[in-house]
Amino acid sequence: MKTLLISLTALATVGAAPPPKPVLAPSEIVAAAPAADWVAIAPADLLVMTLINDRRVIIQLMPAPFSQGWISNIRKLAAASWWDGTSINRVQDNYVVQWGDASEKKPLPTGLASVPEDDYLVRLPTRLDINGQAFEFSANPPIRLAPGDDNYAPAAGFLHGFPFGMLPYEAGVRSMWPIHCYAMVGVGRNLSPDTGTGAELYAVIGHAPRHLDRNIAVVGRVISGIEHLSSLPRGTGALGFYEKAEERVPIKSIRLASALPAAEQPRFEYLSTASGSFAKYADARANRRDAFFIKPAGGADICNIPVPVRKKA
Amino acid sequence: MKTLLISLTALATVGAAPPPKPVLAPSEIVAAAPAADWVAIAPADLLVMTLINDRRVIIQLMPAPFSQGWISNIRKLAAASWWDGTSINRVQDNYVVQWGDASEKKPLPTGLASVPEDDYLVRLPTRLDINGQAFEFSANPPIRLAPGDDNYAPAAGFLHGFPFGMLPYEAGVRSMWPIHCYAMVGVGRNLSPDTGTGAELYAVIGHAPRHLDRNIAVVGRVISGIEHLSSLPRGTGALGFYEKAEERVPIKSIRLASALPAAEQPRFEYLSTASGSFAKYADARANRRDAFFIKPAGGADICNIPVPVRKKA
Repeated sequence: MKTLLISLTALATVGAAPPPKPVLAPSEIVAAAPAADWVAIAPADLLVMTLINDRRVIIQLMPAPFSQGWISNIRKLAAASWWDGTSINRVQDNYVVQWGDASEKKPLPTGLASVPEDDYLVRLPTRLDINGQAFEFSANPPIRLAPGDDNYAPAAGFLHGFPFGMLPYEAGVRSMWPIHCYAMVGVGRNLSPDTGTGAELYAVIGHAPRHLDRNIAVVGRVISGIEHLSSLPRGTGALGFYEKAEERVPIKSIRLASALPAAEQPRFEYLSTASGSFAKYADARANRRDAFFIKPAGGADICNIPVPVRKKA
Repeated sequence: MKTLLISLTALATVGAAPPPKPVLAPSEIVAAAPAADWVAIAPADLLVMTLINDRRVIIQLMPAPFSQGWISNIRKLAAASWWDGTSINRVQDNYVVQWGDASEKKPLPTGLASVPEDDYLVRLPTRLDINGQAFEFSANPPIRLAPGDDNYAPAAGFLHGFPFGMLPYEAGVRSMWPIHCYAMVGVGRNLSPDTGTGAELYAVIGHAPRHLDRNIAVVGRVISGIEHLSSLPRGTGALGFYEKAEERVPIKSIRLASALPAAEQPRFEYLSTASGSFAKYADARANRRDAFFIKPAGGADICNIPVPVRKKA
C-alpha cells in the first residue's frame, strides 16, 4: 500500500529543520519490525483443525498461566483424536461458530479435569512481572487504554501476545483474565457451575462479545483460516444452530501441530506485545495518520488492536 | 429462551418481603416492550437490495439531519436503477463487504451532489433537543457510556434509533456523527477531500471499525439479510477484493421500498431509543443477569448494544 505524506507541519518547515517522518500505516509498521520483535509460536501450542475439503483452521492456545485446566483437557482430546468425525454445528451471525459432538453422546476420554469457575481469572502475586515479562499497559497517551477506559474491566492491556482485562493490584495480588475479541476461541458450557470440558469450542466471528469475559473460559485464538469459519452459512435454528444434520460441517481432524510430521507443522510468529514495534503499531491503530484518514480517533478499544501474527519464513 | 431465577436475595427472603423480580434477558425485555415503544420505519427510508438467487438485504437509511447529502444521492441512484447489474466486489474478513460498479466506468446519473467533509459531522444548535427528541445519553449508572467512557469520542449515545458520537456542547453548538458498528453502511471514497458519491457502498461485517468514524460518511445500517453479505467468500486480493470477475456477486436491483408495489414493501420497526424499554434493554446488555451469566460486566461499549429492529406484524 502506498502512503502519501500529508502534514501541515511539513508545509511550515523551513531552514535546517529535520524533514518530517513518513507517516506509516499500522501494516507498514508491522512490516518494518525487526526480526527480534517477533516471537515464534511453539508447535505444541498450535491446534490444527482440518475441515472437509482440507480447509485448515489454526488456533494458537493461550499461554500459561491462563486457562491451563481447559487447555490441558484440549491437549488430551486432540491426542485422543476425539474431534475426528465431529462437526461444526452452530453459526450465529455477529457472534460465534461452535463445534463439537452434535449427538452429545460421544464418550469423552478419561482423565479430563473438571475446572472450577475460579480459573476464569488468574491471580498473580507480583505487581508488574509475570513470568519475567512486564504487563504491557498501553496506557501512554494517546492510546486510551488507561485504567478506567475499558468498558468492561478496570484495566486492559497485552501480555505474551494476548489481550487481558485486569483488576487493580490488591493485597499483593493482581487478577487477570483473557478477553473475547474477534477470532478468540472459548469453551462452550451449560449453566454454571459447569465450566465445560473443552470438547465443545467456539470462535468469535463478530463484534467482541465482551460480556462473556469472566463467564466463559477463553483458551486461544484463530491465527489462520478464520475465513473458513466466518463465511459459513448461518444456522437458522435458535442461537444459530443448524437445523438439519446435513448442514453441519464435518471436521476431519483436530491435532496439536507438534503431533504432525515435522514437515507438515505450521510455523507462526507474533509481534511481541512488549516490543517497541507493537507500541508504535498500537499507537498508529489509535491514531490513523496514513493518507486515507483525515481525523485520527485519538483512542482505540483493545479489540481494535489485533496482535499481528504471520507465517514464519 | 427460558430464564432461571438465580438470586441470593431470594434465598434470604422471609415473611412479607416482596418476591424478587424475574431476571430478564435482553431479548425478553425487547419481547415484552409495549407496542407504543416501537417506531415504524417509513418505506421511503428503506433500501431493498436484491442479489442473485433473490437473496434480499434491507438497509435503513440514517434519519435527518445526518449524512443527508449522500443519502439524497443514494435516493437518486436507486431511482435511476443505477446499481442494477453491478456487483459485490470486495469481502474483507472482520471488516467490510463493498459493492458498486467494478468497471468504475459506468456513468453516474446527473445531479449528484459533491458533499463536503464538513458534513461527516452535524452541528446542532440546541443542547438536548434534536427534532423534538432529547439526545438519549445512556449515562445513568451502571451503563458505562458517560462522557469520557467511549474510546473514540468524548461522548456516545443514541438518537432516533442510531448510535452517535458527539463533542461537548460548545458556543451554542453540539457536534454529532454516526458511528461504525456491525452492519452499518458507509460510503466508499478515494483520498480526501473526495467523500464519495454514494454509488460505492460498504457494510461492516466485523468488529466495529470505529477509526473510520468522522473519516467516512455513514448512511444507514443493514436491518435484514446481513447474513447474505457476512457469509460471502472472502476476497483473496488486496483489501479483500475479488481477484476474478466470476467471483463477484451480481446485484439484481437496489430500490427504495417506497418504489415497490405496496404489497411488496417490507415493513419494519425499531425499539425507540428514547423508551424505557430501551433503557432497560441497554442496562441488561451491560449487566447480564440471566441464568447463563455469573459475572455481569457492569458496562458495555455502544456497539455491543445493537438497537432492536423487527418486522412489523
